[in-house]
Amino acid sequence: MSNIIEKHRDFINKYLNVYFNDKGSYNKIIYDSASYSLNIGGKRIRPILFLLTYGLYKENYKDVIEMASAIEMIHTYSLIHDDLPCMDNDDLRRGMPTNHKKFGENIAVLAGDMLLNEAMSLMIKFSIKNGAKALLASREIAEAAGPEGMIGGQIVDVINEGKLISKEELLYMHSKKTGELIRVSIIAAAILADAPKKDIEILNDFGLKLGLAFQIKDDILDITGDISKLGKNTKSDENNNKSNFISLFGLEYCERECENLTKECIELLKGLSVESINLQTITLDLLNRES
Amino acid sequence: MSNIIEKHRDFINKYLNVYFNDKGSYNKIIYDSASYSLNIGGKRIRPILFLLTYGLYKENYKDVIEMASAIEMIHTYSLIHDDLPCMDNDDLRRGMPTNHKKFGENIAVLAGDMLLNEAMSLMIKFSIKNGAKALLASREIAEAAGPEGMIGGQIVDVINEGKLISKEELLYMHSKKTGELIRVSIIAAAILADAPKKDIEILNDFGLKLGLAFQIKDDILDITGDISKLGKNTKSDENNNKSNFISLFGLEYCERECENLTKECIELLKGLSVESINLQTITLDLLNRES
Repeated sequence: MSNIIEKHRDFINKYLNVYFNDKGSYNKIIYDSASYSLNIGGKRIRPILFLLTYGLYKENYKDVIEMASAIEMIHTYSLIHDDLPCMDNDDLRRGMPTNHKKFGENIAVLAGDMLLNEAMSLMIKFSIKNGAKALLASREIAEAAGPEGMIGGQIVDVINEGKLISKEELLYMHSKKTGELIRVSIIAAAILADAPKKDIEILNDFGLKLGLAFQIKDDILDITGDISKLGKNTKSDENNNKSNFISLFGLEYCERECENLTKECIELLKGLSVESINLQTITLDLLNRES
Repeated sequence: MSNIIEKHRDFINKYLNVYFNDKGSYNKIIYDSASYSLNIGGKRIRPILFLLTYGLYKENYKDVIEMASAIEMIHTYSLIHDDLPCMDNDDLRRGMPTNHKKFGENIAVLAGDMLLNEAMSLMIKFSIKNGAKALLASREIAEAAGPEGMIGGQIVDVINEGKLISKEELLYMHSKKTGELIRVSIIAAAILADAPKKDIEILNDFGLKLGLAFQIKDDILDITGDISKLGKNTKSDENNNKSNFISLFGLEYCERECENLTKECIELLKGLSVESINLQTITLDLLNRES
């Protein structure tokens, strides 16, 4: 991994590690619970994409850490709720007990709610300080997280458990459930950085393809991955009777598709009005990852 | 009830009834589920307070229906999650099956998430169109709903189930869990309407007292209420081994306190720079309600 990506990851980790420090009184456990999941060892892909994209156009990437963090909070809340017994019923996340395993289901539900609420609150406060572009970026993020975005994908996932679904519905599900938050990490940063309209369009295409490649790679790792590296159980889709890219298209096709999409991502990035080597690097890293 | 309160309630009901109409494709059930709980017969107290307060200073109360509705969505999401088996485990809400009883737990979790997300999205979009005051009002609402507001009260409720808690902690719990969203319905509307600073301070005190009176009245109805009017089971706190105002202070004291608070609310309203008869009416209605 390149130096700048590690630097961004460190910066994000430091910010999120202390974010809920020294907060709370009678309600302290809500901060402990939210902070536990927020700092359990996530790869910070979304906020890194946000900072890298912002950095294509502006020097001061540290000024937008609140917005990058809001996206990571939304991602984390969705994992907490996704792991609940009534959802995927997962005990492990990143090699550690899931939130409800550590704190109990009732606290886990509220910790998820709280992280979504805090993300939105953070974006609203950032917009008060930073004006119109921040508000437009916030709108994109809120919509990408909502019923036509991430939650839309989750509901399709949930109602189809144990059923074979069509390729169209699978594509819909994954482009929403995983893709939308990845796409918006890129797009919202570009809007905030006042990128040229043509670049925003290219980055939107890039984000869509990257999100799809990311999910296909996830499905590949779910079959071929090493549990000690993944930090969660493999074959979870198979065990939950869920359709995924592998079950519908086969492993070989998926590996090829993942490579093709990655190449298309790199080509798109080369068409930007600015130099994009860091985004190219993280794109290749995401394809080659083992967890 | 006065004509204007009924008129506001009708206006809110009509807006929320069709809010999710004709939305969705593969994800349609998330709209059906959210819409079910949003339109199950809530009294619309928070959005009515919002519209009445805005109407103290501005004619065009219909222009702020999005903000009033956002608060009702936040209220509704909190009820859906509160009713879950891992929380209060309630089967009935307003005389109808709770969301998870009708749609299943997994959909109920996501429907709650979606309503919170939609509320925030609505406020962000409203702020893009309506500028700085709207954004300040949105910040107040987001904070009142968060870990130092409503969620803070819920977490204290949850972790103290089956325990006797101190009067201080009970006051903290209720002022957050119920009080904050009622207070902010009033305050956020006053900010949005550009009310004089002194009025905002008075309305803040009014909101705090009204929220407390409202919760004490709820606890009284939980003991003395008629299940057919309440639409939910009575003595739920007793059955869940929860402390409430009655168990800590006794029924007689609570009834007197509720009356005293209501009188103080009316006095505060009379100190505003504008005529406030409609807010006085709804305050008295809330004290005298049977459900």
